[in-house]
Amino acid sequence: MNGYCIATYRTYDDKADFNKKAISIAVGLTVGSWTELPEAQKANMEKHLGKVLSISVHELADAAPGERYADIQIAYPDINFSRDLPALLVTVFGKLSMDGKIKLLDLDVSESFASAFPGPKFGLDGVRQLLGVHDRPLLMSIFKSVVGYDLANLQDQFYKQALGGVDLIKDDEILFENPLTPLEKRVEACMEAARRAEAETGQKLLYAVNLTGPTSQLAASARKAIDAGANALLFNVLAYGYDVLHELSSDSSISVPIAAHPAMAGAMYPSPHYGISAALLLGKLMRLAGADLVLFPSPYGSVVMPKEENLAVKDALLSPLHGLRTSFPVPSAGIHPGLVPLILKDFGTDVVVNAGGGIHGHPMGTAAGGQAFRQAISAALEGISLRDAAAHPGNEALQAAVNAWGIRE
Amino acid sequence: MNGYCIATYRTYDDKADFNKKAISIAVGLTVGSWTELPEAQKANMEKHLGKVLSISVHELADAAPGERYADIQIAYPDINFSRDLPALLVTVFGKLSMDGKIKLLDLDVSESFASAFPGPKFGLDGVRQLLGVHDRPLLMSIFKSVVGYDLANLQDQFYKQALGGVDLIKDDEILFENPLTPLEKRVEACMEAARRAEAETGQKLLYAVNLTGPTSQLAASARKAIDAGANALLFNVLAYGYDVLHELSSDSSISVPIAAHPAMAGAMYPSPHYGISAALLLGKLMRLAGADLVLFPSPYGSVVMPKEENLAVKDALLSPLHGLRTSFPVPSAGIHPGLVPLILKDFGTDVVVNAGGGIHGHPMGTAAGGQAFRQAISAALEGISLRDAAAHPGNEALQAAVNAWGIRE
Repeated sequence: MNGYCIATYRTYDDKADFNKKAISIAVGLTVGSWTELPEAQKANMEKHLGKVLSISVHELADAAPGERYADIQIAYPDINFSRDLPALLVTVFGKLSMDGKIKLLDLDVSESFASAFPGPKFGLDGVRQLLGVHDRPLLMSIFKSVVGYDLANLQDQFYKQALGGVDLIKDDEILFENPLTPLEKRVEACMEAARRAEAETGQKLLYAVNLTGPTSQLAASARKAIDAGANALLFNVLAYGYDVLHELSSDSSISVPIAAHPAMAGAMYPSPHYGISAALLLGKLMRLAGADLVLFPSPYGSVVMPKEENLAVKDALLSPLHGLRTSFPVPSAGIHPGLVPLILKDFGTDVVVNAGGGIHGHPMGTAAGGQAFRQAISAALEGISLRDAAAHPGNEALQAAVNAWGIRE
Repeated sequence: MNGYCIATYRTYDDKADFNKKAISIAVGLTVGSWTELPEAQKANMEKHLGKVLSISVHELADAAPGERYADIQIAYPDINFSRDLPALLVTVFGKLSMDGKIKLLDLDVSESFASAFPGPKFGLDGVRQLLGVHDRPLLMSIFKSVVGYDLANLQDQFYKQALGGVDLIKDDEILFENPLTPLEKRVEACMEAARRAEAETGQKLLYAVNLTGPTSQLAASARKAIDAGANALLFNVLAYGYDVLHELSSDSSISVPIAAHPAMAGAMYPSPHYGISAALLLGKLMRLAGADLVLFPSPYGSVVMPKEENLAVKDALLSPLHGLRTSFPVPSAGIHPGLVPLILKDFGTDVVVNAGGGIHGHPMGTAAGGQAFRQAISAALEGISLRDAAAHPGNEALQAAVNAWGIRE
């Protein structure tokens, strides 16, 4: 529908006339009032009026109280809002978010709205190109403990992770600017470790350093980090706002991929009745705003997200979207090598396998943790069962991991 | 507890060992691991370790599934995060927000953390001073319809509202930068109407113009609006992030009060199981970030918020908080003159009575709508019942309002 952004909501109400509710949304969030307007004015205002596209009421004869809901689609004229995400979100879900049990499920932005968004600067293919890895899932690892540790410790942790053959290492999202490991020194120390490890492994590596601090200084901090050698950034998008990510990713001087962390997302996606769906919050909006990689809860760990939601996030990052580059899906939490075949089955090979405890907790140490993952990835791509692969000579790291954590298929 | 910010959570789980859970939060969100650290290292890391302050388990013998919960207080060392709200929020609720049914109820920031926040530049007293009104609740009104209307229409709406004796007029939060009523021209047109009305009524007026657009240009837009005559700003804080409000309110060149709009808040506060309490989201954090006035759902309209939550928001705006100025509470939605005595009973006189339909929908017109509210406020302050006051000669506007909407006490 050209010139309109379409919002899909699910709203629960045991008694509401959902048709009336849909119309009141379409009018209330656009022209304010409609039926009482003089006909001449209607002709003039029609281009500003929201339109109800569909109403699908889910009503079971034996529904318990609280179970009756409707999915409603409303089209909002682009002409009503500026082409930025705060304006779009405030239009479609600003006041409405407080109007009873209602959840924003999806947003289909118009071609014209999307044209203001360059999206990911590197995207999935760009990240693969930087690493020179095109034929397998990537492997990311996370520092074990960071708060209170000094540069030497972080450098050591980094080196051990890098030795295991990981493709990306990311800061912990709670590592802020601090006197022990300040941004530029941290970048220098870790990139030095990356070079030493590359001399051993022949493997390139991206280090996503956590971009933090006052909003107005983020771009300058990013440039400082890049000048110090950083080749990727981690960013707590929801703590700052999508528009901040959009501005960072659109900035030509910020010439490295940005990984979006989902911190705070659990305040918005898990309730069936309120908030914003994970696929929109961590999928489509992150991609529109320019995230090259997006972390989100995996279906395997303690972090709770039904598997269809994990996959919906992945789909939002990879499906066609107004010609934007795709973002690399990074399902996170609870990942160990024994899960690799399942991850590839669920997410395909265009995925980043991201592990923390599954690398650092390896019985033979951190480097062996990375190796076990790489061995598991190779086996899964070749269609060899992990049990068989673990028995191969040279795959002792995988064998130890399988002994420690088992295999889940 | 000096040097620590304290977070209070409510977490639901039918079986969890809440003691274990609390410790895993306190350790996991700070030093990462603890029991396995060598003693010498513990001595060094102790200052970074989170502390469990209290665990209060609510467990009824006959609890239905899903009803068992605990309130947990964790103290986070200031030394772990930079003194900005994104860092604090990511620390205490970044990853944790995604860890099952858990809601962030409150944050008690330390004196040292708070010292980085000047808070409201004007606050409640400053807003009163600008208006020269110290002895009564203020009256705010909202444009009726704004999207698709031109400058002449908005100016006319503004003038009629101003004639009724309102103290503040705010833009609709969905009025963005647009060719019909661009920011500076809108400010000029409305402030001209304000001057004309003041000549009639002798009454000062603040016009909160909606500050929108790209994050990095907000401060410049605010200055443009102020140069054009704007004497207040409206800001969709949650669509941009608290830190953006903090930076705007700390900017000495932005010399007018900022009213925080709660747009998007419903994505986070209504669920009992997830998100952030209204008192924190719309109360304490808005004030810390520097909002001079804060709009939030009233307990009287269709927008759903249990009354104890409305009052908790108000309390967070008005209670002592590290010496910060108080923020003016603006409970909004569903307000008509017949509610004024109840509003004053619930919120006291340090409140902004905020109406849209209750002013524009007045049977005698918009100006009479404002007058009816002012008459209701006078009556309530003098302890005269609205029914009696409405019968007074000169109070025809109130009489018409009472006839139209009734009185709710």
